[in-house]
Amino acid sequence: MGEEAAAAAANGLNGGSPGRAVGGPTNPMVTPLLTDLYQFTMAYAYWKAGKHQERAVFDLFFRKNPFGGEYTIFAGLEECIRFIANFKITEEEISFLMQCLPPSCEDGFFDYLRELDCSDVEVYAIPEGSVVFPKVPLLRVEGPIAVVQLLETPFVNLINYASLVTTNAARHRFVAGKSKSLLEFGLRRAQGPDGGIGASKYCYMGGFDATSNVAAGKLFGIPLRGTHSHAFVSSYMNIDEIAEKSLCSSNGSTTCEDFVSLVQSWLGKIQRSKPLHGIFGETNQSELAAFTSYALAFPTNFLALVDTYDVMRSGIPNFCAVALALHSLGYKAVGIRLDSGDLAYLSCQARQFFGSVEKEFGVPDFGKTTITASNDLNEETLDALNKQGHEVDAYGIGTYLVTCYAQAALGCVFKLVEINNQPRIKLSEDVSKVSIPCKKRSYRLYGKEGYPLLDIMIGENEPPPKVGERILCRHPFNESKRANVVPQHVEELLKCYWPGLSGKQREELPPLEELRERCMKQLDQMRPDHMRRLNPTPYKVSVSAKLYDFIHFLWLNEAPVGELE
Amino acid sequence: MGEEAAAAAANGLNGGSPGRAVGGPTNPMVTPLLTDLYQFTMAYAYWKAGKHQERAVFDLFFRKNPFGGEYTIFAGLEECIRFIANFKITEEEISFLMQCLPPSCEDGFFDYLRELDCSDVEVYAIPEGSVVFPKVPLLRVEGPIAVVQLLETPFVNLINYASLVTTNAARHRFVAGKSKSLLEFGLRRAQGPDGGIGASKYCYMGGFDATSNVAAGKLFGIPLRGTHSHAFVSSYMNIDEIAEKSLCSSNGSTTCEDFVSLVQSWLGKIQRSKPLHGIFGETNQSELAAFTSYALAFPTNFLALVDTYDVMRSGIPNFCAVALALHSLGYKAVGIRLDSGDLAYLSCQARQFFGSVEKEFGVPDFGKTTITASNDLNEETLDALNKQGHEVDAYGIGTYLVTCYAQAALGCVFKLVEINNQPRIKLSEDVSKVSIPCKKRSYRLYGKEGYPLLDIMIGENEPPPKVGERILCRHPFNESKRANVVPQHVEELLKCYWPGLSGKQREELPPLEELRERCMKQLDQMRPDHMRRLNPTPYKVSVSAKLYDFIHFLWLNEAPVGELE
Repeated sequence: MGEEAAAAAANGLNGGSPGRAVGGPTNPMVTPLLTDLYQFTMAYAYWKAGKHQERAVFDLFFRKNPFGGEYTIFAGLEECIRFIANFKITEEEISFLMQCLPPSCEDGFFDYLRELDCSDVEVYAIPEGSVVFPKVPLLRVEGPIAVVQLLETPFVNLINYASLVTTNAARHRFVAGKSKSLLEFGLRRAQGPDGGIGASKYCYMGGFDATSNVAAGKLFGIPLRGTHSHAFVSSYMNIDEIAEKSLCSSNGSTTCEDFVSLVQSWLGKIQRSKPLHGIFGETNQSELAAFTSYALAFPTNFLALVDTYDVMRSGIPNFCAVALALHSLGYKAVGIRLDSGDLAYLSCQARQFFGSVEKEFGVPDFGKTTITASNDLNEETLDALNKQGHEVDAYGIGTYLVTCYAQAALGCVFKLVEINNQPRIKLSEDVSKVSIPCKKRSYRLYGKEGYPLLDIMIGENEPPPKVGERILCRHPFNESKRANVVPQHVEELLKCYWPGLSGKQREELPPLEELRERCMKQLDQMRPDHMRRLNPTPYKVSVSAKLYDFIHFLWLNEAPVGELE
Repeated sequence: MGEEAAAAAANGLNGGSPGRAVGGPTNPMVTPLLTDLYQFTMAYAYWKAGKHQERAVFDLFFRKNPFGGEYTIFAGLEECIRFIANFKITEEEISFLMQCLPPSCEDGFFDYLRELDCSDVEVYAIPEGSVVFPKVPLLRVEGPIAVVQLLETPFVNLINYASLVTTNAARHRFVAGKSKSLLEFGLRRAQGPDGGIGASKYCYMGGFDATSNVAAGKLFGIPLRGTHSHAFVSSYMNIDEIAEKSLCSSNGSTTCEDFVSLVQSWLGKIQRSKPLHGIFGETNQSELAAFTSYALAFPTNFLALVDTYDVMRSGIPNFCAVALALHSLGYKAVGIRLDSGDLAYLSCQARQFFGSVEKEFGVPDFGKTTITASNDLNEETLDALNKQGHEVDAYGIGTYLVTCYAQAALGCVFKLVEINNQPRIKLSEDVSKVSIPCKKRSYRLYGKEGYPLLDIMIGENEPPPKVGERILCRHPFNESKRANVVPQHVEELLKCYWPGLSGKQREELPPLEELRERCMKQLDQMRPDHMRRLNPTPYKVSVSAKLYDFIHFLWLNEAPVGELE
């Protein structure tokens, strides 16, 4: 039995549903109790009123793109499906719920909870990793109202942060450009353990190349990166500490018995070299010891943190001495990491020094030694580095990325749009909070140039938009905003990820690598003016003329008439 | 076997350590692999250099109080102790690590990892729930450098968010005042599943009264709260939907066969009443149906969300009709929740209406019906409500609280301060980032009025401050800032929570309720000017004269001398 199959078996298979079995949520704490108490009190009230089996349709959507941008990446779907595939309230959980609800609650309700699963729930969703927009449902969930209501909190929880941090990662990638390596280093600053694990997964989806988080690497197969910290450097006192000094050459043909002396002799050569001369005097010996020791442990992966004492006066010359010693044994040093100071200036200085070393000692490509920068980076600092000019090849990004510091929450909501085939609307004095009623279908319409033009929502029974046919697209709430569109390509957005008893084919949950590719591809496909950091153009989200009329009919019907005296 | 003991047994007992056994981390994803890859590469380099057993001392501290304040609450300690008490790398994890590290890494290292635990590590910490300040170590961790290094990332992860969100909760409590109920409603907007669970735990510690998060209620025994949502209201079409209409009176003596009619007759009375007249016309019937149905399910816990259609024209009169019907059967309605609009204005209007109902129908205390407010509340909006005047009794707070929206990360760091009894310093061009070297003790000195005056760090072997004896306290980096203090009370801050092989007594981990009390008590004890929201006075953090001199000696010794030409 393969690892995945074993996991699925351990987590319980999903009974009647066609398609591959689905394992449990990544975090074992995601249980049916991970919800708000009111979902259970409402379930009881529905049950008590004999209303619990009424068929309800809920839309999950957000109202505003995060980070001042005009796009969002949808993520978290797989975890939602894993959750409902294994939704079962245990006897121990039932006992706890009995304590939580008033003693007057009838036993029959707990019998009902005992039998509950999501076999009668249908979930339609936009594929994970897609570019998505406000108001358009990311998920449409249909099923008995008491059950679907219980899913609200976990679904919103699993999607909110996932989509937010994926979007944040995509925005960082956008600013950094495609040629740079992006490393997620945020575990220690994340909001709790699986804030860190989630960040690693979703930053990878959003376009990062690797993470430092070993647990996430194991769970999701994300490439891992990392070398050493300042503590490693300062844990060495001096070069005499190194007892085992021998290092075999790269091809195994010779052994250097005293690598330490080799390093020291290279340091001397650098110090005496004319073009390199004058930049530094004595370098820090504990740093030199730490670098040498690290190179002895990882001769094929030597990357040194060079700012513990002084980048240009100590870190860079020490690094070069070790790197040249490695080179003379046939190895190639990976590079340096800068974790403080003026990264633009220091990266240029370091690049120049590497170039001089290449020339002076005839080491091919030494000038191209990788420069990694870290230290509280975010979209703004990346942008500032670009404007200033720099020589950084890779960025290690933590705090601002994983905590979504610029905007720490996405406001996904879960709204009832239909019950017993009756459309429902949620009113609000704030127009932006009025929900779009009815069970709907959504489409993305593409123009001649291949870009998506807009998304349109229509009533479930309306004819779908057709290629080459003109369709009137209306802003859902602003009567003057409308456009005729002749789409060159029409894409239905919601696909069936959990068919319930509908007999529909279930979409498979693609591996993370594929979600990442979808995300990259979708971002590439967007019209550039929607993507820019400053004053991006909003992407249009619309409804059909028929749905527009119906929304406004229902609105007038439900809203009380004011009485001014 | 009790639940805790069973959990401890399942998680593995902590071998040689005295005191009660410690269960595993709350989140099962917290394993030795929940760390940065570089902790393992460094461990290998230490091992390869034969340096892995060298005894190191690390301080965990933060540099700046969050949210523009001058205090922080320390939280997350119990999770750290649970982590190291059960620290063991499994064979499966070893296999994964073998794939992560270069193939040149020697097998002996993995044998070393197989045997690794934290029995030789010592952890000294400030008690969880304490008020703490920048630069003063929250934790001092001593042990073999390779092991302690592996603890850095999980410890910082477990403490950063915990302390941040506890502090955020304490700040919300401070603004709301002690008489208000504070409910944490953030699960759906939290940064992932255990972002939500952690928030519930730590907001309770920081002074909240209850949570909506059922899983957190079960895990930590936090009181649960919640009633119904807008979807519940809009899921009803009209009052005829209610099939089962009978309700037994509170004392069980009579049964009202048609509670629906009783509600309708009370609504009529309210509509016809002179003082209440004119505020509303017809109320929304689906709302009335939902309220009635909820009251039938929870006659002893009737709390209604009144803003689905229109608070004053529909929600409040509908609530009062149901509440008065309940009252006539001997029940007492709990209250209302407002989730939109002008909360100050609406709460006052509602209070006035309740007062009129009390007078008009002679219902004692109806004017005191509880008013709960929610909808994107934070410190600022609570403060604004206070300034404006309002009638809110309880606040439900979510997004801004649990994601720490105002500042989404605390910058805890973990710095090497000593190795093999040699003090180490981490330099930086930014003075605020220079670490304070040496294995240290910390004390809080109290003044005549009972307030803490300042915290002082001293070298491990210096004599501790004594009550009534003058001591010179110096700012660690600013030579002109110093003060003579004669403490009236001296409190040593670091206590032993994990004794390793030292033979010391281990402090027990107190239950959450006790941590919450400590936090409340400590906050009460602070001088008010440190606590205020605007321009609070910084609390002084100092070092002894001897430690001051040593820091600056070491600094000069390690820093390279600049060469200007």
